[in-house]
Amino acid sequence: MGRLTVRRPVLRLTADGTTRSRPDTLVAEEPLELRVGGKPLSVTMRTPGHDVELAHGFLLTEGVIGSGADIAAARYCDSLDDQGRNTYNVLDVDLAAGVEPPDTSVERNFYTTSSCGVCGKASLDAVKLKTRHSPAADALRIGRELLVQLPDRLREHQKVFGSTGGLHAAALFDADGEVLAAREDVGRHNAVDKVLGRMLMDGRIPAAGTVLMVSGRASFELVQKAVMAGVPMLAAVSAPSSLAVDLAEEAGMTLVGFLRGETGNVYTGAERIVV
Amino acid sequence: MGRLTVRRPVLRLTADGTTRSRPDTLVAEEPLELRVGGKPLSVTMRTPGHDVELAHGFLLTEGVIGSGADIAAARYCDSLDDQGRNTYNVLDVDLAAGVEPPDTSVERNFYTTSSCGVCGKASLDAVKLKTRHSPAADALRIGRELLVQLPDRLREHQKVFGSTGGLHAAALFDADGEVLAAREDVGRHNAVDKVLGRMLMDGRIPAAGTVLMVSGRASFELVQKAVMAGVPMLAAVSAPSSLAVDLAEEAGMTLVGFLRGETGNVYTGAERIVV
Repeated sequence: MGRLTVRRPVLRLTADGTTRSRPDTLVAEEPLELRVGGKPLSVTMRTPGHDVELAHGFLLTEGVIGSGADIAAARYCDSLDDQGRNTYNVLDVDLAAGVEPPDTSVERNFYTTSSCGVCGKASLDAVKLKTRHSPAADALRIGRELLVQLPDRLREHQKVFGSTGGLHAAALFDADGEVLAAREDVGRHNAVDKVLGRMLMDGRIPAAGTVLMVSGRASFELVQKAVMAGVPMLAAVSAPSSLAVDLAEEAGMTLVGFLRGETGNVYTGAERIVV
Repeated sequence: MGRLTVRRPVLRLTADGTTRSRPDTLVAEEPLELRVGGKPLSVTMRTPGHDVELAHGFLLTEGVIGSGADIAAARYCDSLDDQGRNTYNVLDVDLAAGVEPPDTSVERNFYTTSSCGVCGKASLDAVKLKTRHSPAADALRIGRELLVQLPDRLREHQKVFGSTGGLHAAALFDADGEVLAAREDVGRHNAVDKVLGRMLMDGRIPAAGTVLMVSGRASFELVQKAVMAGVPMLAAVSAPSSLAVDLAEEAGMTLVGFLRGETGNVYTGAERIVV
């Protein structure tokens, strides 16, 4: 657990046509099996560390739990590697009494749930029904000057990226630009789940008045996770997809893309940005 | 189907602090439900188009089929949106007689399968057992000068990326640097599946003597897909993960990362690169 990076030898192809051997730092990627009440629910490829946050965030954004009190216990199972050491790659979560366990039937498995059906419209309806929080009513306002600084502030927290170049990052900021939580992971959905899971464990969901900043693109899945946590603004360094914009609009969330340098594109909810 | 991009109005935040409205081109992202013999198997968020290739590639790299002849038919179901139009977002595949349908039990669902268990070792073993092709014995040799040109050649095929900035790309090259197939998608695993699916439909799996070039990072999942298709070399513009390198080494595949400009890092199988 907590093995964020791994060192390995690498053959470097240089610009002058020669090669040389040197050690390189790689970002760690390992599978995490999440069990709920002893039953396998999902396996995700993630960067080890903050796994309990990851589980909280995943269960929150999939609509299984609504608060930290919905989880009674979370612990690593005894999963041993071939040298008999615990891999810390199986996490067992017990839900609190009265919390309905997730439906794990094939027809409604988790991967299906996060895409929610078949046409875009059905997906949007399913998310609207499922979320307990409405970003639409959130009174967040943020100045343009502060907004365009968020990518740099996110980068300050990308410690592993600096050494490996291989990680996605997500951070949640308040309206003053202060970082509430920041995480890195090989999977950008995991980085977001870890941030939102941290907030849930701190009793800060819905995450009213906040901006979620991500290092990559804004996919439907990331907008969905923000909506499920009551985050009113998602800002991304790269492009959003069509369905991400559709969902942000339906949910009344502000969606900003290509936020880099001094510029950015506001796709929805421009009223929250004070120019 | 084939809606690669969507136009939308956007509010542009400019460097001088002003804003202006303008139309923007977004990459299309829609869910595709894949059914095998009428039973739902998976839902993936993808860029519409080349869906039959996507299904072939997915079923190949998940170990369900080994050749194009293993699929008897692939057609869009009648999935209607709220205006009664076909969404082209449900694809039904019929396997040929004698081909065993995928195991869709929860304990071994597809998301689980692609991570294959719990510790990295277990994942590697599962993949080794599953693949029908061995990249290890592949006699591919490629000159350093040609190798470092592949990112530019890939970029020539990134038509949608140029207008949206929101797509991953994958292309398969032969040892002379000629493109065999190139595809773009919001999901990089989908771009790879579409390329490998095309090869399968053309009867060219195992893809001996080829290099798979991807626009982003090299994750475990992408290495696994390449192994399943018998591709002996994977090159990525960005970083590989630790588990990706482990699997490439186990499978006898050449893995190159950070291939950009005139430089790159060779993590495994350096003997295939002629300096």
